[in-house]
Amino acid sequence: MGIDPGLATVGYGIVEYVGNKFIGCDYGAIITPAHTPNGERLWQIHEELNQLLDYYKIETAAIEKLFFNTNTTTAISVAEARGVIQLALTKKNIPYGEYTPLQVKQSVTGYGRAEKNQVMSMVKMLLNLQKIPRPDDAADGLALAICHAHCLGSFSMRNLKG
Amino acid sequence: MGIDPGLATVGYGIVEYVGNKFIGCDYGAIITPAHTPNGERLWQIHEELNQLLDYYKIETAAIEKLFFNTNTTTAISVAEARGVIQLALTKKNIPYGEYTPLQVKQSVTGYGRAEKNQVMSMVKMLLNLQKIPRPDDAADGLALAICHAHCLGSFSMRNLKG
Repeated sequence: MGIDPGLATVGYGIVEYVGNKFIGCDYGAIITPAHTPNGERLWQIHEELNQLLDYYKIETAAIEKLFFNTNTTTAISVAEARGVIQLALTKKNIPYGEYTPLQVKQSVTGYGRAEKNQVMSMVKMLLNLQKIPRPDDAADGLALAICHAHCLGSFSMRNLKG
Repeated sequence: MGIDPGLATVGYGIVEYVGNKFIGCDYGAIITPAHTPNGERLWQIHEELNQLLDYYKIETAAIEKLFFNTNTTTAISVAEARGVIQLALTKKNIPYGEYTPLQVKQSVTGYGRAEKNQVMSMVKMLLNLQKIPRPDDAADGLALAICHAHCLGSFSMRNLKG
């Protein structure tokens, strides 16, 4: 599972990777309502993520690494969301990796400075999808999951759990 | 309860405030081991804070507001800790306020640019302590709790819960 953290939107992408092939995927986003106390939004993220981790029997996860840009208020919120996401993964004993946007682009397209639409097209192609996933955060989640799969090599739920 | 967030150390101070007087306090720090995955440190913070909230029957809390300085790596860790702290408070339905260091100094000493040792001396005096609390993070937690008490006005566990 690839997770693109945020307070308003947590994008996620789930892939099954067997024998160096992507044989299935799903994606979506946890959306929290604006004008709601941060604590409640963090709680919603924690609860919904817990449900997803159980439903999809997630084995391993990837979270986007946070860098600071000019908007530090947003960065604080993203980091707070990253806190509860890491808590949920750790409590369920799910190992996770962290990747920079550059590492994700490099892994998905072979080129670290690829444009966003190039990354999206490669995600669509690699996962054999009919169209580019929406919202963007979900597509970013899938790109993270692909990056993590490439990084870890071949694995599958069946091989590991069966 | 005042909470000074961090990944390595979460300082906390607990005060009971009745009729505009501080009639009791306790303080301490949650210390997480270095060289441990962040997720596990966040989990430890979440669990130990939960125990403290129950043990002391915390009614309301104050967290230090995060500002960005030059050390953004530390800031990310502090914000991640803030995430799990807010989650713990929200799940237990404990309202919390957030205060900047300047607001805390202003509230405790009457002067926003007070030196750290002036703040510590005022904490010791207001709470009628024998010595200045250690570690610093715990003393900061107490200062936050005093600030929050001043802000909310008189309340007590007995009055509200009895």
